[in-house]
Amino acid sequence: MAYRAPVSEITFLLEHVLGGTRLGETSLFADATLDTAAAILDEAAKLAEGEIAPLNRIGDQQGAKLENGMVRCTPGFREAYHALATGGWVGMNGPEAYGGMGMPMALTVAVNEMMSSACLSLALNPLMTQGQIEALEHHASDALKDIYLEKLVSGQWTGTMNLTEPQAGSDVGALTTKAEDNGDGSYRITGQKIFISWGDHDVAENIVHLVLARLPGAPAGTKGISLFAVPKFIPDAAGNPGAANSLRAVSLEHKMGLHGSPTCVMAFEGATGWMVGAENGGMAAMFTMMNNARLGVGIQGLSQAEAAYQQALEYAHERRQGRPPVEGFSTIIGHADVRRNLLTMKALTQSARAICLDCAISLDLARANGDEAQAARAAFLTPIAKTFGTDVGCEVAALGVQVHGGMGYIEETGAAQFYRDVRVTAIYEGTNGIQAMDMVGRKLKDGGTAARALLDEIRATAATGGPHPRLSAAVEHLERATAWMLDAGLNDRFAGAVPYLRAFALTLGGHYLLRAAQADGARMPLAAFHIRQLMAQVGPLCEAACEGAAPLYADPLAV
Amino acid sequence: MAYRAPVSEITFLLEHVLGGTRLGETSLFADATLDTAAAILDEAAKLAEGEIAPLNRIGDQQGAKLENGMVRCTPGFREAYHALATGGWVGMNGPEAYGGMGMPMALTVAVNEMMSSACLSLALNPLMTQGQIEALEHHASDALKDIYLEKLVSGQWTGTMNLTEPQAGSDVGALTTKAEDNGDGSYRITGQKIFISWGDHDVAENIVHLVLARLPGAPAGTKGISLFAVPKFIPDAAGNPGAANSLRAVSLEHKMGLHGSPTCVMAFEGATGWMVGAENGGMAAMFTMMNNARLGVGIQGLSQAEAAYQQALEYAHERRQGRPPVEGFSTIIGHADVRRNLLTMKALTQSARAICLDCAISLDLARANGDEAQAARAAFLTPIAKTFGTDVGCEVAALGVQVHGGMGYIEETGAAQFYRDVRVTAIYEGTNGIQAMDMVGRKLKDGGTAARALLDEIRATAATGGPHPRLSAAVEHLERATAWMLDAGLNDRFAGAVPYLRAFALTLGGHYLLRAAQADGARMPLAAFHIRQLMAQVGPLCEAACEGAAPLYADPLAV
Repeated sequence: MAYRAPVSEITFLLEHVLGGTRLGETSLFADATLDTAAAILDEAAKLAEGEIAPLNRIGDQQGAKLENGMVRCTPGFREAYHALATGGWVGMNGPEAYGGMGMPMALTVAVNEMMSSACLSLALNPLMTQGQIEALEHHASDALKDIYLEKLVSGQWTGTMNLTEPQAGSDVGALTTKAEDNGDGSYRITGQKIFISWGDHDVAENIVHLVLARLPGAPAGTKGISLFAVPKFIPDAAGNPGAANSLRAVSLEHKMGLHGSPTCVMAFEGATGWMVGAENGGMAAMFTMMNNARLGVGIQGLSQAEAAYQQALEYAHERRQGRPPVEGFSTIIGHADVRRNLLTMKALTQSARAICLDCAISLDLARANGDEAQAARAAFLTPIAKTFGTDVGCEVAALGVQVHGGMGYIEETGAAQFYRDVRVTAIYEGTNGIQAMDMVGRKLKDGGTAARALLDEIRATAATGGPHPRLSAAVEHLERATAWMLDAGLNDRFAGAVPYLRAFALTLGGHYLLRAAQADGARMPLAAFHIRQLMAQVGPLCEAACEGAAPLYADPLAV
Repeated sequence: MAYRAPVSEITFLLEHVLGGTRLGETSLFADATLDTAAAILDEAAKLAEGEIAPLNRIGDQQGAKLENGMVRCTPGFREAYHALATGGWVGMNGPEAYGGMGMPMALTVAVNEMMSSACLSLALNPLMTQGQIEALEHHASDALKDIYLEKLVSGQWTGTMNLTEPQAGSDVGALTTKAEDNGDGSYRITGQKIFISWGDHDVAENIVHLVLARLPGAPAGTKGISLFAVPKFIPDAAGNPGAANSLRAVSLEHKMGLHGSPTCVMAFEGATGWMVGAENGGMAAMFTMMNNARLGVGIQGLSQAEAAYQQALEYAHERRQGRPPVEGFSTIIGHADVRRNLLTMKALTQSARAICLDCAISLDLARANGDEAQAARAAFLTPIAKTFGTDVGCEVAALGVQVHGGMGYIEETGAAQFYRDVRVTAIYEGTNGIQAMDMVGRKLKDGGTAARALLDEIRATAATGGPHPRLSAAVEHLERATAWMLDAGLNDRFAGAVPYLRAFALTLGGHYLLRAAQADGARMPLAAFHIRQLMAQVGPLCEAACEGAAPLYADPLAV
């Protein structure tokens, strides 16, 4: 079936649920009125539906290949990437001084959702570049900015993140890639990086690698890591791609999905790079990029949920099988259990979208108004957006397979591809377990201020009435769990992090869905289903969150 | 890593949790003492670990192929199948009169678990044959039994089930394959069947298809379906494979997983077959085969959970990453969230195994003693075993991927293969939604007797004390939900079927794990984790189960 970009759903959310009008009221985003937003989303929708979506299946079947040391991408990817770049979508939130549109993150993630639903493998490429643009904008010298930013914003060049090494995954501080000073402002980078998305390709003329490496004598761990921009082709005096740098894609990973996205093992063999940010300050610069990417990956999860839901819904409306026990139905959409699956998919998908967009709006307001409370709000929502967006992506894709029955297991149907493709989103950019630890560790260091401010927002929604007292009850569960977390030792928090995050996300979902229903009564049944049935888990999740670490260590888990 | 068959875990369960000694006390299974069982399981374990398991990955990479109208299987599958057959494992519970070992189903499913953990694609083949043996034993004429049973029991020939047609999947009654009387005791079968596991292959000399078809003038729906045995090669007077029948594999499906198992589209073009059971009585015969297969598929799910758990556990013990916050640990097994994942995997896997084995023991006792209460108990447990076993398979495989981090998404690791392979088990042999409908529909037609008898067993376990009052509370939740189901209209039951089944299964799991812990105190932490944390969902699930159908139809689910 054909993907249809959910433009009206997004504009409804922005207008009626998330207070998106606040963006156009800032001077930074004065152009981003709701009308302009709708026009931009319509334009992006055309590209996503018409040019990107038709490539999704071929990307899966004819994935990227490494031939004679060069990565060749799926047929059609180059042209589609060109359309993305020339449409201005890579740099839509990039700095205007370098040719970007300076649009809010809220619109950027909405566009990214559509492009990712259309073809996740391809859309991962500009996502990497967008993160790199933000990192360079905040941390690079003006000289570096002048060389790289315009090319990245225009999409002529693409960006990558090079963190992971075989022994250094979640524990970035264990990396050993070396950087040595050339004495001329440049550095020699030597080491091997793995899992580098779009580490090499043939869809654009140059690739800028942001590489974490260690200077001689640097402190151990994350405090001794510096960040370097290492281009595939070293820019010449005119700023065009010049001499080939000493780096290459050694191999491509054989992944369960995302075949269209070349995941490279990269070898840097004395490659020339330039430092971004301060010496030994690489993690700060990387965090800028990672925070952006974490929200972006949450959107990726959401994007596959949306696509899987659309496909399953259409199939359920068409597939005749058995006689539904309710009059007026002739296809499996009339079966109660199929409807339970589809309602679950719909409620989770809408919840995840609202969380991600709300996070983006807070980022925008923080930036536009220098509002620290909004910045803290965004920081608190980021791990929720990443984890819940990607968990929902996995769960909804699994339900999508199930709605299709036996056809769901056949690759031609496409449901299985969503299931395979989305799985990595719960892992990369920090596994969902790491995200939850970030939430109960770093993000509660404010003494719970950001958490409680969000709970107050939900409480206010619950107080306006609704289908069930469960929303208010959930807020109280979360208040207690938050208080417990603030009192608990770090490993006790970590032990309950995943259930705590899940409980928070489900409750936020109920809050957004109820607000949507208050603006449009036709949405009340979905809000009621979410709050009465899906949110029933909130209490038990909060209980599990507060059990502490001891029960997890009582069984030896011997091999 | 190498698969290790969990022989001691199974014998512990049989001896201390499931009352497996009752089998040896019957005259039918007098040989099946616990000592004999252990010896048999040890023998099977050697084959599974040594000869079958090494084929799992090659089966995924070099799946079955259709070449010149013939299916060629993965290199090594023929030899491994031969070892399975000559070891007597195909016919281990087959009738002794036809060369079978007449072993209890409890041991058969235990062996099937090991073979399936070792290589699910290959082990699916004898599972199909075992179901066919049972169907022929109960429904075929003596003449047919004499021709087919010995060959099937010995594994010289293999069996298939041919139910599904493009328009007739869950709704078997919609099938249109034709059967016409040849007037000589045989029939001409014409039609196309899809999703036929091991429909053609080169690992054995003949294949017997059990085909559902419709005689001219037969009543519509399931009441007009007859069952036919349709061999690939028609047996000659000496009982050896003779003339080729008019049937063929038209194509193989491209599946997300189980690549080693050839899933065929079968064309019957006036093929010669012989009726099994009564005219228009095909569904009764098919149900014999399907009930067997449903428990068998539950075991398949369990088998992948076990294999995924073993692999993830070993990885967690080896992988160094970050500094675990608890002394004495140097690998990721020391991280609380990794332990939560592994404990969840372990508790769910053990729960699923106990449910499946308990179901098998009841089948055995019903058969040995003509005990109708045990038969009803087995019938009630069958959809639970199928659904929970396969859901757990999917969930545990997903957690297994997560424990591996980025490596989990790389095919070489093997975690992704479990995730892909197991997914179909929640779909075939009746989707898990259909199973749950069977449970709250057909299996509650006894007025709740079987359900309540099981709840009484759990109540008795809970009364012996335990880590948490939650087990008793869960029984009361389930009592209320069962009472609600018995009063509710059919579609209201169907609407709550999936959460009701899940709640029942989780509670059964708590009951078994607590019994295990009472026999071996070292198991108490796992039981406590399951009961306190995983079973926290039981209350909310029961609540959702009793919401009725109306909330599922209130949202139009418009495209």
